[in-house]
Amino acid sequence: MITVLRLGHRKDRDKRASMHVALVARALGADGIVFCGEKDDALLERVNAVSKKWGGKFRATFSASYRTTIKKFPGTKVHLTMYGKPVQGAAPALAGKKLLVVVGSEKVPRDVYALCDCNVAVTNQPHSEIAALALFLREVLGKKAFEKKFPGAQVTILPSEKGKNVKKYK
Amino acid sequence: MITVLRLGHRKDRDKRASMHVALVARALGADGIVFCGEKDDALLERVNAVSKKWGGKFRATFSASYRTTIKKFPGTKVHLTMYGKPVQGAAPALAGKKLLVVVGSEKVPRDVYALCDCNVAVTNQPHSEIAALALFLREVLGKKAFEKKFPGAQVTILPSEKGKNVKKYK
Repeated sequence: MITVLRLGHRKDRDKRASMHVALVARALGADGIVFCGEKDDALLERVNAVSKKWGGKFRATFSASYRTTIKKFPGTKVHLTMYGKPVQGAAPALAGKKLLVVVGSEKVPRDVYALCDCNVAVTNQPHSEIAALALFLREVLGKKAFEKKFPGAQVTILPSEKGKNVKKYK
Repeated sequence: MITVLRLGHRKDRDKRASMHVALVARALGADGIVFCGEKDDALLERVNAVSKKWGGKFRATFSASYRTTIKKFPGTKVHLTMYGKPVQGAAPALAGKKLLVVVGSEKVPRDVYALCDCNVAVTNQPHSEIAALALFLREVLGKKAFEKKFPGAQVTILPSEKGKNVKKYK
């Protein structure tokens, strides 16, 4: 079971990025996401509406304290940061475990590094927390990350060589 | 050699997302990015400044026509779209080829589907073009995607269990 914790969400500035983080978490096999930072009910609703339409049990919730969420999590806490140890080395030991994957936004509070069990880097180059999360899930879950099932979907895509093929159930 | 083509950039709305697409392309092993849409010199400068600081030869440029860029590209053109064929199946045949990887923004013009040699999906679920690009590069390049060298860097990160370890050269 994998839960994602998104730190420091800002309603205006992170509107799109936080949505992308949530959708990536859902599409690549995580089970839910917890947002910290500014409370943003519209964001939770948008994420949960995607789950309703596209299927599966992925849910977004809000926590008023990242510290409490990390401390109380009954499993392994992984912080994704460009300063950490390479994901290629870290991922095998994390496979199959109950994970909290902590994803920062612009500025990550210092104590997150110590609160988590490990700090993992997806390359030590600057890029994107959205991509880092996607690649982390890929490395930990293997190709299963691409093959998650989403039961109860109102709509699915049938893969197509050219163009769009969408199937609606309801 | 892998070049990324980012479609339909909008100066205001895509400021962060386009930067993330470029940084992901660079960090995960592509050689350059071409932006289409609104001309945005500040974006090109920001991307090229990252290359200068963090090393490597990755460069961002602008094209006034995605059609011309796709048509004239002397290699295989791959369009990333949630409607395409699964990346797990498509990636092996693309490894080692000279690739143009076309990444859309909100609305992709219809002819892109036909102009490209293949339409590839990273899951058929809604998520993020930033993550799709990252995962595509990972699947095509294998773990090499995580091990790209960036010669000439002014600054590099030394991977660290806890905290930050940055080395400055100049």
